[in-house]
Amino acid sequence: MKIILASQSPRRKELMDLLKVDYEVIVSHVDETLEEGLTIEEQSKRLGYIKAKAVFDQTQGDRIVIGSDTMVVEDKEILGKPKDKQDAIRMIQLLQNAEHQVITSLAVLIQEGEAYQEYIDYDATKVYIKKMSEEEIEKWLEKGSWQDKAGAYAIQSEFGVFVDKIDGNYFTVVGLPIHKLYDVIKKYLEIGISYKM
Amino acid sequence: MKIILASQSPRRKELMDLLKVDYEVIVSHVDETLEEGLTIEEQSKRLGYIKAKAVFDQTQGDRIVIGSDTMVVEDKEILGKPKDKQDAIRMIQLLQNAEHQVITSLAVLIQEGEAYQEYIDYDATKVYIKKMSEEEIEKWLEKGSWQDKAGAYAIQSEFGVFVDKIDGNYFTVVGLPIHKLYDVIKKYLEIGISYKM
Repeated sequence: MKIILASQSPRRKELMDLLKVDYEVIVSHVDETLEEGLTIEEQSKRLGYIKAKAVFDQTQGDRIVIGSDTMVVEDKEILGKPKDKQDAIRMIQLLQNAEHQVITSLAVLIQEGEAYQEYIDYDATKVYIKKMSEEEIEKWLEKGSWQDKAGAYAIQSEFGVFVDKIDGNYFTVVGLPIHKLYDVIKKYLEIGISYKM
Repeated sequence: MKIILASQSPRRKELMDLLKVDYEVIVSHVDETLEEGLTIEEQSKRLGYIKAKAVFDQTQGDRIVIGSDTMVVEDKEILGKPKDKQDAIRMIQLLQNAEHQVITSLAVLIQEGEAYQEYIDYDATKVYIKKMSEEEIEKWLEKGSWQDKAGAYAIQSEFGVFVDKIDGNYFTVVGLPIHKLYDVIKKYLEIGISYKM
């Protein structure tokens, strides 16, 4: 069974590698504009789905296509990738000394012979960021790799020292709920984890 | 200021690397037998301390020595590194489909001129493991790297797909509470994170 990850995120690739299975990456170039009238969870699921669907439609044969989208949500505001450094400062100032949610969707489209199945879900984790000084915020924005990160931070980077604790799944915060993905595709990984060591 | 990690754990080294500061590793060879009459948290702190102290005593000059110990605790039983495969099976069977605690201590001994300071603390995180089938347990024990892991698992490995969620700090589960370490030594990292990029 061919497995395709519809994402170019290096974090998602690192998490996929934990499944120890062969897969390829095909990047979907979809319009990620939010739709009006949807809840945040619905937005997240929709974006994960349209990314997977775009790649599914341009491929053929037996295949599993995986799409995902990560949103940082602070007090009902969705924080996407920062537009510029000013926007990143605003985000970190919002997030520090407070708790927020990270919502990551998972869309898995499976074609096996004539049978087609869709699995569309999301996972949410609470993240508590410590109080940060002005200097710490400045230093992160000067030297850290915040540019392509929702909410202007990455928990698995040196920014991790500012994360007090989480309540939920860690991989969901990094960007792909592989604990859920595993459950959906494990029958294709022989019994349980497919070790390729 | 010289920084020394008193641990040969590759996981601890990876976490130390997130601080982006130069450090060396000196392994302490202390007797890790538990002492009678101590609580689990006290055992953890004591082991972190004696590891750091052994290395502190064999070095000199201005220095920060960091010691740590990780324990997996299920229903008041401390699960250390499994003695053999049979012991590992028993541990995973205990941990699956249940919640447990990971307790990691942090001892930081600082000599700066005439001044000596000690910081000894611990951090605890709850971990929820999904239900695992017999085949999944067998496969992990056959192919996974459980040998030198407290509780016979590593959250950051492929075993991570079996972790439903955590409540607390992720790095504490991996093996070093760097969010606390950072607070203790940040003044030696210039202002905040010491970037060496």
